[in-house]
Amino acid sequence: MPDPVGAVARLQQELTRLPGVGPKSAERIAHFLLSGDRKTAVALADALRDVVARVRPCRECFNLTEGELCPICSDSRRDAGSICVVETPRDIALFERAGSFRGLYHVLGGRLAPLDGVGPDQLTLAALAQRVRRGGVREVILATSPTLEGDGTALYASNLLDGTGVTITKLARGLPSGSSLELANPQMLVDAMDGRRTL
Amino acid sequence: MPDPVGAVARLQQELTRLPGVGPKSAERIAHFLLSGDRKTAVALADALRDVVARVRPCRECFNLTEGELCPICSDSRRDAGSICVVETPRDIALFERAGSFRGLYHVLGGRLAPLDGVGPDQLTLAALAQRVRRGGVREVILATSPTLEGDGTALYASNLLDGTGVTITKLARGLPSGSSLELANPQMLVDAMDGRRTL
Repeated sequence: MPDPVGAVARLQQELTRLPGVGPKSAERIAHFLLSGDRKTAVALADALRDVVARVRPCRECFNLTEGELCPICSDSRRDAGSICVVETPRDIALFERAGSFRGLYHVLGGRLAPLDGVGPDQLTLAALAQRVRRGGVREVILATSPTLEGDGTALYASNLLDGTGVTITKLARGLPSGSSLELANPQMLVDAMDGRRTL
Repeated sequence: MPDPVGAVARLQQELTRLPGVGPKSAERIAHFLLSGDRKTAVALADALRDVVARVRPCRECFNLTEGELCPICSDSRRDAGSICVVETPRDIALFERAGSFRGLYHVLGGRLAPLDGVGPDQLTLAALAQRVRRGGVREVILATSPTLEGDGTALYASNLLDGTGVTITKLARGLPSGSSLELANPQMLVDAMDGRRTL
């Protein structure tokens, strides 16, 4: 419609703010929500309000939680000596799904990006340093994203933890498993070559 | 996370009900909504509630509206003698964007699908017949989708309007403009051949 009715237009506009939702998807979703008995729209609105009201950062690692501590920090079977430092709570979900890591996490809340106004104070770097200095930590794995900003953030964190005596590691770089050499970009090949191992 | 916290898991579940949103997009959207100041989540929840509370079917054509009559039915510049029958309010948006049709619409609310329990009573077919019998209508354009069910619905509507004296037309079938012959399926080619015109 050239003049979509106010409430529908506003819903479509809000929907286009979501990642991966363009104007066409927003229109499709809005009309889907308006068709039928509209239970889905009400349930979605409730779920959004619930999440905003109840979910907050874990006191210890800044993961998302509804309690004081997140389920991972409260799990005594996890290895508290190993902390994997990630940028966002979503990264934790990815590692947990992969299932190999049994330690704890620390969510930075982003990566250093001075040009966008993200400095060390905008991240939970001070809390990480405090957590490590409290003791009991053997290793800190810096699992920031494999980008310039991610690497810069890892470097900053590594300097910050200098002198604490803990081992500081970074994720391996190389070829993505299940991919093919043809699809690798030059940097992947350089990383794969630099990190080569004897068989 | 193996056990995502309740409210976040519920939000992700509600998001996957949306068309075009799979589990991965739902996760991405949920984490996006939980990052930052959460204004987007609140605004989206508000927009959803607003739409559910305020938007209803137009008394005349069953388009979406916040008033009694939709903006199209209330527009005296539109040609009330021509009614384009569509399946959903979204189809109206598509025609309006194309911009060539200046008549009014009638939203059926779907198409006949006996196997899915959608019979004539689930659609606004009776209201359409009533509207046409009230008079002032010259032409009814059946713009249902170009599928078996859409064609069946058009046939049913056409029989229903039999004897009212109005001209009943269907949308043209043929090659999609801007496409190429290579991409046409056999039915498109049959339609294009059947509907060929002299130059």
